[in-house]
Amino acid sequence: MKTILSVPAAMLLTLSAAAPAQAQQAPKPEQLIKWRQSAYQVIAWNTGRVKANVDGSYNKEDAQRAANTIAAVANGGLPGLFATGTESGKGWHDTTAKPSVFSDAAGFGTANANFAKEANELARVAQGGDVAAVKAQLAALQKTCKACHDDFRNSN
Amino acid sequence: MKTILSVPAAMLLTLSAAAPAQAQQAPKPEQLIKWRQSAYQVIAWNTGRVKANVDGSYNKEDAQRAANTIAAVANGGLPGLFATGTESGKGWHDTTAKPSVFSDAAGFGTANANFAKEANELARVAQGGDVAAVKAQLAALQKTCKACHDDFRNSN
Repeated sequence: MKTILSVPAAMLLTLSAAAPAQAQQAPKPEQLIKWRQSAYQVIAWNTGRVKANVDGSYNKEDAQRAANTIAAVANGGLPGLFATGTESGKGWHDTTAKPSVFSDAAGFGTANANFAKEANELARVAQGGDVAAVKAQLAALQKTCKACHDDFRNSN
Repeated sequence: MKTILSVPAAMLLTLSAAAPAQAQQAPKPEQLIKWRQSAYQVIAWNTGRVKANVDGSYNKEDAQRAANTIAAVANGGLPGLFATGTESGKGWHDTTAKPSVFSDAAGFGTANANFAKEANELARVAQGGDVAAVKAQLAALQKTCKACHDDFRNSN
């Protein structure tokens, strides 16, 4: 996170939220791209956790936590991180967003909504602890991942 | 995400979760560090959203979504990303974890639990839509951010 102030980096998180309202500025494109790349990494982390649970020794609490995190991020407003001005550029790495994310914002929103719908269902199923049901719903979720990647993400 | 297979990067998310169980391996240190750095970025993104809401025009749904995301990540098992072997190294950038994260894992766990407790309360308060209450609880949450940073994160 960049700031024009000279402060310890350890305080930046606190500072960014504690700054007076009038000092707040819209996040820079680089920051938005970092946040969206981070959000999808968190999804990958937790999708992998659910997969490890259904394929290995099933820990209900771990699977629930992972599914809840996926659902929260899926419902958390991901399309808002693809603002005008972030069509290209670098966050942690060059963006892999296709131009279609921006030219077909409605379609991208629908793809995200499909993902959120299946993520919510995964979180619901994970509450029950039926491993086969969790596995099946994970597969349903992953179809929405792939569909969105096909339409809206460049290979890199 | 690295893989030994030659496949389009757009498929990696799907692939990593769809690979046969016997092919699954523990994530590499670099991956764990990327995931934890990503998770804290997602927290920063959403803490900033709550702050923008309480300081500006309050959008209850947006604040709720942001608070829910913070709570899900806070409860999602962050200490598990500080596994042995990740004391140093680079994810998106060099880790800023202090040695104390690993030498005082119990203390780090308590700091994370304190954070999760206040994040849960923020998510609860955000359901009600009392802006002053959300603002006060955000401040309570941020105290736990700072406390953890003081003890467990290097400035950079």
